[in-house]
Amino acid sequence: MGRGREQDLIARYFAPLAGAGGLGLRDDAALLTPPPGMDLVLTADALVAGGHFFAEDPPQSVAAKALGVNLSDLAAKGAAPLGFLLTLSLPQVWTQAQREAWLEPFAKALGESAAQWLCPLLGGDTIATSGPLSLSITALGAVPQGRMVRRTTAMPGDVLYVSGSIGDAALGLALRMAEVKGEAAPEWAQRLDTAQKNFLLDRYWRPRPRLALAPVLLARASASMDVSDGLVGDLRAMMAASGVVARADLRLLPLSPPAKAALVAEPGLFETLACGGDDYEILCAVPPASAAAFEFLAQQAGVPATQIGFVASVATAEELLGPEGELHPFAHDRFSHF
Amino acid sequence: MGRGREQDLIARYFAPLAGAGGLGLRDDAALLTPPPGMDLVLTADALVAGGHFFAEDPPQSVAAKALGVNLSDLAAKGAAPLGFLLTLSLPQVWTQAQREAWLEPFAKALGESAAQWLCPLLGGDTIATSGPLSLSITALGAVPQGRMVRRTTAMPGDVLYVSGSIGDAALGLALRMAEVKGEAAPEWAQRLDTAQKNFLLDRYWRPRPRLALAPVLLARASASMDVSDGLVGDLRAMMAASGVVARADLRLLPLSPPAKAALVAEPGLFETLACGGDDYEILCAVPPASAAAFEFLAQQAGVPATQIGFVASVATAEELLGPEGELHPFAHDRFSHF
Repeated sequence: MGRGREQDLIARYFAPLAGAGGLGLRDDAALLTPPPGMDLVLTADALVAGGHFFAEDPPQSVAAKALGVNLSDLAAKGAAPLGFLLTLSLPQVWTQAQREAWLEPFAKALGESAAQWLCPLLGGDTIATSGPLSLSITALGAVPQGRMVRRTTAMPGDVLYVSGSIGDAALGLALRMAEVKGEAAPEWAQRLDTAQKNFLLDRYWRPRPRLALAPVLLARASASMDVSDGLVGDLRAMMAASGVVARADLRLLPLSPPAKAALVAEPGLFETLACGGDDYEILCAVPPASAAAFEFLAQQAGVPATQIGFVASVATAEELLGPEGELHPFAHDRFSHF
Repeated sequence: MGRGREQDLIARYFAPLAGAGGLGLRDDAALLTPPPGMDLVLTADALVAGGHFFAEDPPQSVAAKALGVNLSDLAAKGAAPLGFLLTLSLPQVWTQAQREAWLEPFAKALGESAAQWLCPLLGGDTIATSGPLSLSITALGAVPQGRMVRRTTAMPGDVLYVSGSIGDAALGLALRMAEVKGEAAPEWAQRLDTAQKNFLLDRYWRPRPRLALAPVLLARASASMDVSDGLVGDLRAMMAASGVVARADLRLLPLSPPAKAALVAEPGLFETLACGGDDYEILCAVPPASAAAFEFLAQQAGVPATQIGFVASVATAEELLGPEGELHPFAHDRFSHF
């Protein structure tokens, strides 16, 4: 769009969200004085309507998801957020009224998320596209120098933990998919009450980055990543990156009461829960000598953490136990947006 | 696209470009130890096929433009590049072969630009979209603490300078537009030889961020911005942001020999040159006492810098002189991509 119109949009909707370093979004660039003695942790994620969210999703959930998925990466690295930049591509075919009707709730929700996670808007860009709505966020965080928690440093003997509950968002996506397509809800959903279904939908729409766990990871984890593309696939990715294998019992996966109810109704959901995406929980490896301290600190931080197994040397074989306690192949282990 | 395929793409095309902080693009996030005593300067720009470039443009020029426009912002702020993050949205309809045919030259050219400007790839994300090819880059730079050159601090009496030459890219865009649409080249283009036309096209395709001028701006400029959306509009934007007005004679605008030849052929091009976009030159304000030193240092840095006028107080009226030395309104003063 023309720079004039872009400036109007920015002044109206985004300048109020800008942190001090954003300079009111009136300059060519943002300014950030890095906290002394800290390393910067940087992550960027792009989301597109029809891929990572539905075009019909509420703007509020798009805002919460776009910022949340980036902050989830920072949390997994033990980092505290410093700020973010946003590039937003709005459909050319939108009228001025449509644009305003979308931008107002989007910007309001983005500001609320930014305030909640202490992560101010620093800058960005708004363009028009002949394609679907899409957005890209780059988030910056800080960790003490040399202390970023890697994905590549899990050690044989480490205990594997997962935060929160796994699989809710995959069920939420299934509910939302049926809704958007005008199809009947899956059969298992008929055993759930409205509050349970809303919980699952909300888990799909609004990732809660586990930033409260970041200092605990810094203190005690040997390796960590966020669970975004399915627990089993992400677990395998962390093990491969660390040159180790997992011995995990996936019957131990922490499930929410609605996910448990769905699984009772439809035992075939086990793979969906274990391999679905969009959890935005933390998967980490903790040395056995630190396990008790890790559990205590996680509890103090208000974040549930569940043991699901151990890290083993590549001299042994991977061992992932499925619903019957059997060695389970998990052949389709990663969520694909497409 | 699925995470597996995305990981393959990243490993193959982008991991070789990653700087040390990119951790081989194998972790959730990048790591950057900020240089002590420096502020970070952050900028993000998105580009979409059909808006900022043609879908048919060579991947090399898309790479050069995407990184160049961001580094141009850093240069204008007096910053030295530290690195960048890239999110890339590839059309879903592309076959694997099309994807490779595009990504290989794109990544190669991006790596060359990154090496040329000492700005390594730190991280990013690759997704598939139902829309056109698009990409978003966030670039980070460093300036001594408290020294970022603002857009908002031009003072009455300051001398206005423009780097390089203005209007080439607007003419290059006109040539390219005719080419893509299969139309006849504009009449003025028939007075130009092939080398001149290629020069204009290259100026449109490959912005050369004026990073060599960054230390000179830091040392001597009171305000600065990059010229991306048309000189006149950007000049007015800088003046408005600073609460001042310009008194400039746009007959002084530095024009390249091909642009001069085109203007001789078609005097109506004056507005296109002065108001067209994609120059990626620097517009800056320099206190009169520093003007001689600024000119000397710019020359030492190998960057042409041309006086085009002065900054005046808002107590006086803006005065922009057009081709006949007349007060010129420049009603359509900013380039619109759409």
